[in-house]
Amino acid sequence: MKLGAIEAGGTKFVLAVGNDQGDILQKQTIPTEHPDITVPKVIAFFEGTGIERLGLGGFGPIDINQTSSTYGQLQKTPKTDWVDYPLGAALKEALQVPIIIDTDVNVAAMSEAKWGNATDVDTCLYITVGTGIGAGAYFHGQTLKGLSHPEMGHILVRRHPEDTYEGTCPSHGDCLEGLAAGPAIEARWGKKGHELADNDKVWEMEAFYLAQALTNYIYILSPERIVMGGGVMKQPQLFPLIRKNVLEMLNGYVSSPHLTEEEIDNYIVPPGLTDEAGVKGALYLAMEK
Amino acid sequence: MKLGAIEAGGTKFVLAVGNDQGDILQKQTIPTEHPDITVPKVIAFFEGTGIERLGLGGFGPIDINQTSSTYGQLQKTPKTDWVDYPLGAALKEALQVPIIIDTDVNVAAMSEAKWGNATDVDTCLYITVGTGIGAGAYFHGQTLKGLSHPEMGHILVRRHPEDTYEGTCPSHGDCLEGLAAGPAIEARWGKKGHELADNDKVWEMEAFYLAQALTNYIYILSPERIVMGGGVMKQPQLFPLIRKNVLEMLNGYVSSPHLTEEEIDNYIVPPGLTDEAGVKGALYLAMEK
Repeated sequence: MKLGAIEAGGTKFVLAVGNDQGDILQKQTIPTEHPDITVPKVIAFFEGTGIERLGLGGFGPIDINQTSSTYGQLQKTPKTDWVDYPLGAALKEALQVPIIIDTDVNVAAMSEAKWGNATDVDTCLYITVGTGIGAGAYFHGQTLKGLSHPEMGHILVRRHPEDTYEGTCPSHGDCLEGLAAGPAIEARWGKKGHELADNDKVWEMEAFYLAQALTNYIYILSPERIVMGGGVMKQPQLFPLIRKNVLEMLNGYVSSPHLTEEEIDNYIVPPGLTDEAGVKGALYLAMEK
Repeated sequence: MKLGAIEAGGTKFVLAVGNDQGDILQKQTIPTEHPDITVPKVIAFFEGTGIERLGLGGFGPIDINQTSSTYGQLQKTPKTDWVDYPLGAALKEALQVPIIIDTDVNVAAMSEAKWGNATDVDTCLYITVGTGIGAGAYFHGQTLKGLSHPEMGHILVRRHPEDTYEGTCPSHGDCLEGLAAGPAIEARWGKKGHELADNDKVWEMEAFYLAQALTNYIYILSPERIVMGGGVMKQPQLFPLIRKNVLEMLNGYVSSPHLTEEEIDNYIVPPGLTDEAGVKGALYLAMEK
């Protein structure tokens, strides 16, 4: 059986045709432009391929409630061309196949649980730190959702005592994303993250914010593993700093052999899948239904 | 079929024999003393009743991992007499019935979902604000757990700008519980909460902390309802203040008709069950397995 998969990101769409074993047979990447340009290209890619279902992991906020009349519709995204665009409905109508939609980070969490660095546990959290911050949780075979999908990048954090930067988030100013995503690093320090690799203060502050977030995720969700990806996490010095800060913030409160100096390197980890995590997660969505 | 239920709290144990329809047939409350005093009383209550399974909602931290060799064992609880006490194993050995264990707040969330103020939704969060702060989530038929049970009361919060109180938490000082549980109110203001009912500043500060917690829970879990119980929540002025603060902190970011001035009164609600929530939740645990 052939299945379609889309990783719909803010910068690019990754399109793939795969099979029900999770193999990718055909793949194409296109830039994310105005929906009137991008969506016809998506439809053209899948037409004639014989896919029987389509999985989509989308940037958000996006309506992922299957019983909603606006299922698959983009919401208040900063990408203004896409606000209220009915992405799910447009694809379903053009391709005439069932479409299963979840967030980009939820499908990345699924992907890591199925093929990546969380295959040996039943619960995991995936967080991406890049142009934005988002996270998805995969618990006992399903992604976590309720009222809507989580928006874990927007939690409130305590300010670093030396940080006077106001924050970039248009909705909240100095929420986690507003203080710790790539654009905040650039705005605060006047250079992009990869140009600041040697500035210890940058990464000490970044780790302070990200460790606060992980500490709260651990208290609230208690995942068995945390996978951290995205452009900012390419700085290798971040992982040890984050792990150290998390242990200090938890201060031994959560009893677990995984939350110890000996084991934390296997608890907070980089992704096992690289470029294909999103699109393979979308394929997994289509496989499961 | 007869089933046993225990709400094991830090102050009292509520014991009940019920049936598989959720009816309570017999009930007794005993104080929480040293385990050598309390546990024999628990065993005596259930002996000869013919229960076939026993559900237990326990104060924590407690090991709720069914595959663990220390399933049902208390962990680093502030009640020092109970640290490392194998409550689950002791009851199972004495009563010779299967025992199903979860946290007190997880079973309260189940109870509200089954019989209380969250019967119409698939996902809910229950939070208690009393001598401590704890919360449990019930999502799509199961309580949320992973590495361990959540410890949502210990999340990091931003300080209120006028609050100089250091916090009561022995592990973290000024985490949420350290700043907003009943003992923190009493230590900061020199009186118990119910004696401070007329002091607006007390409740403005309390709502500031609790609303931060709820905002983070909404971003991370996205529950369809939040039920708030516990002694501190008996102050009726708190609900409107918390709701107002939550809407301000979210600032419209999560698109949902429930997160509006018109609907928030039905989103953040008091418990539907009162005294029996815990023990009925424990009974539900026994019913489900």
